[in-house]
Amino acid sequence: MRAAVVTAFDKPLEIQELPVPEPGPDQVLVRIEASGLCHTDIHAARGDWPVKPAPPFTPGHEGVGIVEKVGSAVTGRTVGERVAIPWLGYACGTCSYCVSGRETLCEAQLNTGYALDGGHAEYAVAHAAYVVPVPEGITPAEAAPLTCAGVTTYKAVKVSGVRPAERAAIFGIGGLGHLAQQYAQIFGAETVAVDITEDKLRLARDLGAAHTVNAATGDPVAEIQALGGADVAIVLAASPRVLEQAHASLRRGGRLVLVSLPKDNAMRLPVFETVLGGISVIGSIVGTRADLAEVFQLHAAGRTRVGYETRKLEEINQSFEEILSSEVTARLVFEL
Amino acid sequence: MRAAVVTAFDKPLEIQELPVPEPGPDQVLVRIEASGLCHTDIHAARGDWPVKPAPPFTPGHEGVGIVEKVGSAVTGRTVGERVAIPWLGYACGTCSYCVSGRETLCEAQLNTGYALDGGHAEYAVAHAAYVVPVPEGITPAEAAPLTCAGVTTYKAVKVSGVRPAERAAIFGIGGLGHLAQQYAQIFGAETVAVDITEDKLRLARDLGAAHTVNAATGDPVAEIQALGGADVAIVLAASPRVLEQAHASLRRGGRLVLVSLPKDNAMRLPVFETVLGGISVIGSIVGTRADLAEVFQLHAAGRTRVGYETRKLEEINQSFEEILSSEVTARLVFEL
Amino acid sequence: MRAAVVTAFDKPLEIQELPVPEPGPDQVLVRIEASGLCHTDIHAARGDWPVKPAPPFTPGHEGVGIVEKVGSAVTGRTVGERVAIPWLGYACGTCSYCVSGRETLCEAQLNTGYALDGGHAEYAVAHAAYVVPVPEGITPAEAAPLTCAGVTTYKAVKVSGVRPAERAAIFGIGGLGHLAQQYAQIFGAETVAVDITEDKLRLARDLGAAHTVNAATGDPVAEIQALGGADVAIVLAASPRVLEQAHASLRRGGRLVLVSLPKDNAMRLPVFETVLGGISVIGSIVGTRADLAEVFQLHAAGRTRVGYETRKLEEINQSFEEILSSEVTARLVFEL
Amino acid sequence: MRAAVVTAFDKPLEIQELPVPEPGPDQVLVRIEASGLCHTDIHAARGDWPVKPAPPFTPGHEGVGIVEKVGSAVTGRTVGERVAIPWLGYACGTCSYCVSGRETLCEAQLNTGYALDGGHAEYAVAHAAYVVPVPEGITPAEAAPLTCAGVTTYKAVKVSGVRPAERAAIFGIGGLGHLAQQYAQIFGAETVAVDITEDKLRLARDLGAAHTVNAATGDPVAEIQALGGADVAIVLAASPRVLEQAHASLRRGGRLVLVSLPKDNAMRLPVFETVLGGISVIGSIVGTRADLAEVFQLHAAGRTRVGYETRKLEEINQSFEEILSSEVTARLVFEL
Ligand SMILES: [Zn+2]
Ligand SMILES: [Zn+2]
Ligand SMILES: [Zn+2]
Ligand SMILES: [Zn+2]
Ligand SMILES: [Zn+2]
Ligand SMILES: [Zn+2]
Ligand SMILES: [Zn+2]
Ligand SMILES: [Zn+2]
Repeated sequence: MRAAVVTAFDKPLEIQELPVPEPGPDQVLVRIEASGLCHTDIHAARGDWPVKPAPPFTPGHEGVGIVEKVGSAVTGRTVGERVAIPWLGYACGTCSYCVSGRETLCEAQLNTGYALDGGHAEYAVAHAAYVVPVPEGITPAEAAPLTCAGVTTYKAVKVSGVRPAERAAIFGIGGLGHLAQQYAQIFGAETVAVDITEDKLRLARDLGAAHTVNAATGDPVAEIQALGGADVAIVLAASPRVLEQAHASLRRGGRLVLVSLPKDNAMRLPVFETVLGGISVIGSIVGTRADLAEVFQLHAAGRTRVGYETRKLEEINQSFEEILSSEVTARLVFEL
Repeated sequence: MRAAVVTAFDKPLEIQELPVPEPGPDQVLVRIEASGLCHTDIHAARGDWPVKPAPPFTPGHEGVGIVEKVGSAVTGRTVGERVAIPWLGYACGTCSYCVSGRETLCEAQLNTGYALDGGHAEYAVAHAAYVVPVPEGITPAEAAPLTCAGVTTYKAVKVSGVRPAERAAIFGIGGLGHLAQQYAQIFGAETVAVDITEDKLRLARDLGAAHTVNAATGDPVAEIQALGGADVAIVLAASPRVLEQAHASLRRGGRLVLVSLPKDNAMRLPVFETVLGGISVIGSIVGTRADLAEVFQLHAAGRTRVGYETRKLEEINQSFEEILSSEVTARLVFEL
Repeated sequence: MRAAVVTAFDKPLEIQELPVPEPGPDQVLVRIEASGLCHTDIHAARGDWPVKPAPPFTPGHEGVGIVEKVGSAVTGRTVGERVAIPWLGYACGTCSYCVSGRETLCEAQLNTGYALDGGHAEYAVAHAAYVVPVPEGITPAEAAPLTCAGVTTYKAVKVSGVRPAERAAIFGIGGLGHLAQQYAQIFGAETVAVDITEDKLRLARDLGAAHTVNAATGDPVAEIQALGGADVAIVLAASPRVLEQAHASLRRGGRLVLVSLPKDNAMRLPVFETVLGGISVIGSIVGTRADLAEVFQLHAAGRTRVGYETRKLEEINQSFEEILSSEVTARLVFEL
Repeated sequence: MRAAVVTAFDKPLEIQELPVPEPGPDQVLVRIEASGLCHTDIHAARGDWPVKPAPPFTPGHEGVGIVEKVGSAVTGRTVGERVAIPWLGYACGTCSYCVSGRETLCEAQLNTGYALDGGHAEYAVAHAAYVVPVPEGITPAEAAPLTCAGVTTYKAVKVSGVRPAERAAIFGIGGLGHLAQQYAQIFGAETVAVDITEDKLRLARDLGAAHTVNAATGDPVAEIQALGGADVAIVLAASPRVLEQAHASLRRGGRLVLVSLPKDNAMRLPVFETVLGGISVIGSIVGTRADLAEVFQLHAAGRTRVGYETRKLEEINQSFEEILSSEVTARLVFEL
């Protein structure tokens, strides 16, 4: 099978011909149909983060495909079924996080496309209990971005506690933001979309944003405060300055949800405003299998639209460059 | 009557002889028996904060005393009753915050000892609906510190969501911290007390702390993480470094509650750890009348101990110095 | 002014000519434009409930109109403004319920059209703090049903905790049910509408129901369980049998919200299924001023449709009969 | 090994000599040290419930003992460790309930001592992921009652949402009730104990009850309402009349938690009071592995006292009679 392989953090990925892997007793073998490209893949391939993966490995945690084999101990999954292989490739299943509905915090978790070989290949093995079935009526190319971009923004909206008659400001309407906006609306909120290009603001309006702010030409803090302030701000743009604007756009009792990781890993949190305003800042990381099942269910019910562009696996290195140069804003999906 | 009056932000307070004020239709006149000194009084007297009070005024928002007169439209309060006059001197009663149980966020609020003359005087008038009855069995000198220090830490513990079988770390065991620790225990938590003097750690142990850490000689982050990390950290020490230690002492899913206002008003929030750890940072500001009633109820039931030292009103300027020099750690209470 | 007056529980209402009332210091005088007829008005007029109103009185707690006078102590309301006068005509503002966002539980509350003269008249006085402004773009005739039917069902949906990717079953698609369904959808739920006439089920489908069940010809429990069961069931039909069906249609972890009051005031609660299924049964009573403001905000934003028919005040006795005979299912609104 | 075996629903249990079972790949073999007797064991042995177990089988879901063997695929458990084998013997680990922290609602669950052979034997096999380690400092005889009676009442208190400055009424101070009372106190509540014997009320006072009511000689509804009503009522006595008293003892906003299963499986729920009082009735069924770990942690920290009496396994049939005749009120524990 062909696989995109990281051989070293300072080298481009190689498309290698590798043997199709064999699933262990608790695993399934999945023939990948589509695999979405997440910014995290680039961090993985370059070893950007403190705990690094071990080359050679195949990145990708938005792999979607058909189960071709099931391990001897697998129950619940069957050959021929379409599944998604998300970031949470394995968790212990017994720690206090796993048992209390917070499996994405499991200290023993293994992540797909990082500690485990991922979806940027023709085949992948995955722990059967951690793949999520893709319901009828969702194409592989749509399911792929939902598998990380979708569930991550869905979870961010969920933990924000946003509800009808509240206002949610979404900072950054790209591959993640256009989904965050839709989920905020599904939770009943009025949305304000903030971005720096008119294209994306137009998309936000098409998707139902009540207000849009062009942060290149206007002041999002002033404009959102003029509306009465945001109850919730969700930040998909990885810049400390945007984080601070998002905080400043909140009304009292507001909640700022952090999803993206800025380069220098720091936000200057204004303590006075946080305390007097009764503001919460909430870190949110991907979502559980149950969250992903909900994401798929909402899409199958026609509640969301997914923007994406397709690429060939052979284009993976150029695709990295496209993302880094912000040439594309929709999710890139490798079709296999 | 005698009153401690701020005449200018750069002058000491004066003890002046003023006429006893007359309550308006919705107000009560309270003969003050005890009035606690809060660090906020010093900020008020010096005009430290962006929105400043207007001299001349009398600070104090822990005034406790006996109702001597009630205004013509007052219902619910009666002459002879003991009441406390807290920081929230007035709120609009009709905005979304007031109606939804978050009156301390009311944009129209007036604060006692700041916008309204406060408790550091022999008499004070107060909006009848915003004083809170002090139940039998609580002395004025105990009730005073509960009126701000008590309810502020009680609320901080409440919004932390801490519960039995969780671990709460309290950073700073002074006038606020020794109460925060007790409330965390009443909510069922195991507590870790962090301070830099053995005296205070001894007090914390007396009050039931399961663990204590001397941050002058040890590393609170390492010691708390060795216990498994804190589910909740409450910071009463107004230093950015302590805020960062408190954040770092959390386990995944942990919650950091901000109460104190550091000098330069900024905390460096580590975004990566906040997102990956699913951590929340929660600003908490005093508490509602209902919270204060609960604080009194718990004290009347014998569930809390209040540390305080008494002073004369004439000693108010020296008392400010005592606090600023950290000579005393218990709450100072003026007896009148 | 003309007013519909209950003179005795066993007599029809009389249309009397009464002097226009004078607002007290904390009250407003409202010139009524539209006043919705709620089933509770009939219970009030007939003295059906244990705590009875005292004739003569004017029922009506969906009165909408223009402020014509404000009392001397009123702040916040101005002459010329459109307001609604809901069931919660007055609450104490200081008890634990009022202060914690649950004013509809206040033991000292006074109810409009019951303890206080209500909206079925050309003018009404109301406590200024408890009227709710009607935003631009909502007609009086639409605002009226929202003032009780709207906020009651909105609150029922709110306390149900329903959220996206959950299924809500609405039992009874009449004046309340068609609103409950819309609110459940605004909170993100997939809805199942249950009724016994095809007309109402057609309305439910128009409003976006994913499924409908005709309980006259089919078995709602079997049909809803075939879908996977309901996460939430909201019962607007005042029959013990429907309550029991609603309970039986829940999936594990489901929540049954009680709103309507059946004749004999009893539901047979199956304890085994409640315990094993981890089911909650939640009583919900109208909503707060904040809830009503949200209801208006959602309608002004075009998120809800209100079904109603207009009547003349003189037709009030016939209108009672229409409701009792189930001839109409939409809300009746008196235009004044 | 010796095991207590149900051979038919209408016969006494037999003590049989059976081969020691062999653990499957995901199982452990536990040498039982103590096994608590729960009323559910009697229902299991007599086939009282709609879904019946299949004789021959061994009841018991409070088995505590030492791991003697681990299956080939087991991780996390080691030989020599002390564990408890609770009612939730197996759950699927992947359904929406399992993944969202509500594994006790899993539709695929298998229950110990019911579908799976249980703890009333010298050895038991158990699914490794569903046993819970017993920490140092807890004896097997104490751990046993905590494994069902403890976690069941702990969960009931947890779902009640009770908190400091609230009042919890516990109806029935027996093997479950004395634990429910302690947990309510650990969550910060003031407790009222209701029972019909002075012995148990004395125990309740020893354990810290603020009030006790003898329901044989007094009226619990009147006495609790005289205190201000209960915020929470937890019913461990399986009688419809007690359920109705518990409901009537609530104040507005109160929550009634159902745990016990009355004979005729019905409670008459007063709808009017439930709706007007904003009351919730909450079914609660045992607890998760995480809940049980918390129960053990609290006991190891010295926060709870467990009342029990020991019996020999051979006395199981007499022990059933003792429980049915209410001769004993403490938990009976077989020592092996
Ligand atoms: Zn990703
Ligand atoms: Zn885990
Ligand atoms: Zn203060
Ligand atoms: Zn307000
Ligand atoms: Zn009504
Ligand atoms: Zn009230
Ligand atoms: Zn049991
Ligand atoms: Zn399951």
